[in-house]
Amino acid sequence: MAVSLHASSRASINLDTDVKPSIYFKSHLFHNQHTTYKNRQAACFSTKGILRIDHSSKHFSFQRECYSVDVKKSPTTTKSKFQLDDVIEAQQFERDTLNDIFKVAREMESIEKNSSCSKILDGFLMATLFYEPSTRTRLSFESAMKRLGGEVLTTENAREFSSAAKGETLEDTIRTVESYSDIIVLRHFESGAARRTATTANIPVINAGDGPGQHPTQALLDVYTIRREIGSLDGLKLALVGDLANGRTVRSLAYLIAKYRDIKIYFVSPDVVKMKDDIKNYLTSMGVQWEESTNLLEAASNCDVIYQTRIQRERFGERIDLYEAARGKYIVDKNVLNVMPKHAVVMHPLPRLDEITLDVDSDPRAAYFRQAKNGLYIRMALLKLLLLGW
Amino acid sequence: MAVSLHASSRASINLDTDVKPSIYFKSHLFHNQHTTYKNRQAACFSTKGILRIDHSSKHFSFQRECYSVDVKKSPTTTKSKFQLDDVIEAQQFERDTLNDIFKVAREMESIEKNSSCSKILDGFLMATLFYEPSTRTRLSFESAMKRLGGEVLTTENAREFSSAAKGETLEDTIRTVESYSDIIVLRHFESGAARRTATTANIPVINAGDGPGQHPTQALLDVYTIRREIGSLDGLKLALVGDLANGRTVRSLAYLIAKYRDIKIYFVSPDVVKMKDDIKNYLTSMGVQWEESTNLLEAASNCDVIYQTRIQRERFGERIDLYEAARGKYIVDKNVLNVMPKHAVVMHPLPRLDEITLDVDSDPRAAYFRQAKNGLYIRMALLKLLLLGW
Amino acid sequence: MAVSLHASSRASINLDTDVKPSIYFKSHLFHNQHTTYKNRQAACFSTKGILRIDHSSKHFSFQRECYSVDVKKSPTTTKSKFQLDDVIEAQQFERDTLNDIFKVAREMESIEKNSSCSKILDGFLMATLFYEPSTRTRLSFESAMKRLGGEVLTTENAREFSSAAKGETLEDTIRTVESYSDIIVLRHFESGAARRTATTANIPVINAGDGPGQHPTQALLDVYTIRREIGSLDGLKLALVGDLANGRTVRSLAYLIAKYRDIKIYFVSPDVVKMKDDIKNYLTSMGVQWEESTNLLEAASNCDVIYQTRIQRERFGERIDLYEAARGKYIVDKNVLNVMPKHAVVMHPLPRLDEITLDVDSDPRAAYFRQAKNGLYIRMALLKLLLLGW
Repeated sequence: MAVSLHASSRASINLDTDVKPSIYFKSHLFHNQHTTYKNRQAACFSTKGILRIDHSSKHFSFQRECYSVDVKKSPTTTKSKFQLDDVIEAQQFERDTLNDIFKVAREMESIEKNSSCSKILDGFLMATLFYEPSTRTRLSFESAMKRLGGEVLTTENAREFSSAAKGETLEDTIRTVESYSDIIVLRHFESGAARRTATTANIPVINAGDGPGQHPTQALLDVYTIRREIGSLDGLKLALVGDLANGRTVRSLAYLIAKYRDIKIYFVSPDVVKMKDDIKNYLTSMGVQWEESTNLLEAASNCDVIYQTRIQRERFGERIDLYEAARGKYIVDKNVLNVMPKHAVVMHPLPRLDEITLDVDSDPRAAYFRQAKNGLYIRMALLKLLLLGW
Repeated sequence: MAVSLHASSRASINLDTDVKPSIYFKSHLFHNQHTTYKNRQAACFSTKGILRIDHSSKHFSFQRECYSVDVKKSPTTTKSKFQLDDVIEAQQFERDTLNDIFKVAREMESIEKNSSCSKILDGFLMATLFYEPSTRTRLSFESAMKRLGGEVLTTENAREFSSAAKGETLEDTIRTVESYSDIIVLRHFESGAARRTATTANIPVINAGDGPGQHPTQALLDVYTIRREIGSLDGLKLALVGDLANGRTVRSLAYLIAKYRDIKIYFVSPDVVKMKDDIKNYLTSMGVQWEESTNLLEAASNCDVIYQTRIQRERFGERIDLYEAARGKYIVDKNVLNVMPKHAVVMHPLPRLDEITLDVDSDPRAAYFRQAKNGLYIRMALLKLLLLGW
Repeated sequence: MAVSLHASSRASINLDTDVKPSIYFKSHLFHNQHTTYKNRQAACFSTKGILRIDHSSKHFSFQRECYSVDVKKSPTTTKSKFQLDDVIEAQQFERDTLNDIFKVAREMESIEKNSSCSKILDGFLMATLFYEPSTRTRLSFESAMKRLGGEVLTTENAREFSSAAKGETLEDTIRTVESYSDIIVLRHFESGAARRTATTANIPVINAGDGPGQHPTQALLDVYTIRREIGSLDGLKLALVGDLANGRTVRSLAYLIAKYRDIKIYFVSPDVVKMKDDIKNYLTSMGVQWEESTNLLEAASNCDVIYQTRIQRERFGERIDLYEAARGKYIVDKNVLNVMPKHAVVMHPLPRLDEITLDVDSDPRAAYFRQAKNGLYIRMALLKLLLLGW
């Protein structure tokens, strides 16, 4: 990291203004064993109280006294790498950042390969704060943390914090939990909860799904899987199949994939769950070609990736008839495999019901279980980046 | 291990055909830090994709390409030890294997004694996948794993995977969970679930109870306890007391104990929960003497082991009267102790209600809490054997 | 520790009689890697069975044989420090012990500061046995254990042990759980459950709240916070505000604070939830000055500490009108801050609803989140003391 930090006195510190100070300090306050000498100067402050920097006023309060901040731009000879502070939504990542994250994820694959059982996160504590159960996502994050030597505090019972009888705000809960841990992985039932958590917390936060909002690590692992399976993202032809109206997965994927060149997307979905206009308009504005199709076989024969999703019964309320019609309409089966190019892959965020038939599983182009495994590598990479930096 | 593995090229590997290749690879795919040089050759393959060996056709697919397998019998100078792949049911263990497992369990006792806090499973991750809560069994497995330096991913909420809204198959869940962990401990409400899991998984599986089916680690710890307490299993006289019709514990124990010589079993139970004919016929076919008795004191005065069990109210439905009658009929109390030989022991799988009175606890022959502790050693032994081999 | 232990033979051991043998052995039986050579003699015994010392008769039974105990007073040149065996209730701690614990807690703060990520509890296993969920308390204990390198077995589902279908006694559950772990942290819905657990267990027990009874670690962290924030406890002026009738927090705090000199307490509460006479009489007997006040501003202007608590709706049953009246009566807001001395602090056990307004949070005198963090240090200190001694 090109940032330098000098503390000539308690009343004055120098900061590289390329970096937002409040967020910069965040990841380093409590982990000085992993930081360089200069960063330790900051950590040295931090251990005595909560260091709060008011970015605009250039004053900070520390313990109970107030200091003015002397912010100077340090001479930086090399370009600073993007500092990852929190993972809140898919849109926050630019193409270059994605590539950098994918490089780290690839390294994570080889950490397991050599089974040197890396201990790079030894001594770090992750809190998995789940306001609704999502065992699959939780186990993936916890495996990632433990594969790197870190430890976990876990609760799928976080709603208890804000139970009717008690009524604590999310912000108060976060200020308590951050005093126990080094990073928070939040699953919440309300859209926007992850951003509120990140704003409150002085430690890094990862959004593991907040209601109908975002599930950015899923989007990252999807793009990573395409890159690993197909080799490149530019020039990609992609069919998104199934419930495109409600699936946050396909929406986030569309956002991310639009950052690459020469993308063509086919939307293949029953009428009642068609892709919404906001995404279509966004794709058009980004220069992404897209078209709607009612012919899965035709799309499959043209594409590099078939991204199948589950039609969710709970979206149809009383209209079971509509659900049954939608559900059976586009199934990935042997017929689809027969028209798919040899290099193409079938993806699915899991769980699946019958929208991919079981006889597809043994085809080498069935990538969905490899995709699940890639989730582990992406989460290992993010934990490493948020806690230790690049 | 006497198996040797050579990879002269990607297209050909040599295998000791004493070992089922698909299962052999299973325990070593992801743990090459603990294997010898030769095994690492296999691990080297494994990290690049899922290596699937079709045993009959002697072909295997790796990544996306298909290779033929050149299976040669290596010259082995010493007899290969039985390779433990999964723990699914009590019947899978032969007398020699039991003795070998008990030797390892005994070593586990001294690991704790020296408190060198062995780290032999450092870097290994166990998933406790519980479809119904069983806190006692779960904590025993998790303690075993952690006592050996391993780590745990835990869920008592696994039913969520197959919830009505989602409906994922057990097989899909297993293929996801195996990508996060090195070994799966499964508790399930359906008989046969453990076998399905083992068939699907490329990592070892332990059955921690699947419905009315099997609970093999309980049976192993029972036999281990008898051996530790009495010294020998051959020549044993054993009274099985209580609910013999529904208790999977006593049924599994009967299966295992029949593998030893000169066994005599007394069945002491209320009429409504008598031992079923399948077990009686099995014992007879194995040359085990058995008789039914209505006199607990007489049985107790003759036996080395009194194995008491709980009468389960839920088995009686509306007939509370039958339950109350059955429940009070055979109680182990001071009177029973008075007629028991000095060397004999009282065992119980726990939890107990009042079928053993509290004043028995302080008698040295009350072995049931030592029995619970032996569960820890047996599980430590199994985890070691499944992950590291003999 | 000044205690010495010699085992000249299996039939005789020397004990420093300053120490209750049964409890002395307790913390050392299974952890000889952390004890000195002499203690290992005891551990050597312990690994072969449950060592039970009958204190009065000076006999002990080991395995199945009975020995007489030769208890001699060892020559001790330095005064033995109080040996902490269990943490059951606030009253168990004398002023000197409190000071000693606080010294260790202060050291725990610097363990984190240097982030040497101490591993002093490496190899130890804590069981968090929660009969009712309390995620905040559980995470605090588990963080404390993991920050010291220890491991955790966790259940918020402990009621399952004593479920209607099974009906196991607490004592039987404890004897099972103690065979899996080195220390038990118990949360229970029944007053007195912690003491029953400590009586049964051969390993240390910490009460993490038992029904309306005690929550001693909360009381310890409260007193520790006052000392850290104000500097001294003697001469303290303290306002206890809110629900003083039902809050076990304020009651325990009153018990502890009475051990210091020149204390003055103001009780500021709605009439329906006034402090009860037992505490008032106790304080009077201890020479503590107290008065009831209906004027929060006046109390605030005189005090070093404002300890605010939540009015619990569930205490009012149908009388929502009384609840609403009580709830809004004494709010800590900017007006209160304006009259508070500059050195004073606002404390709260959390969670809070609106009894402290959000604009108070940014004032340096708002100590409640620092208080929550202090809970971590107190619990680290207790775990260290119970498992390793002073």
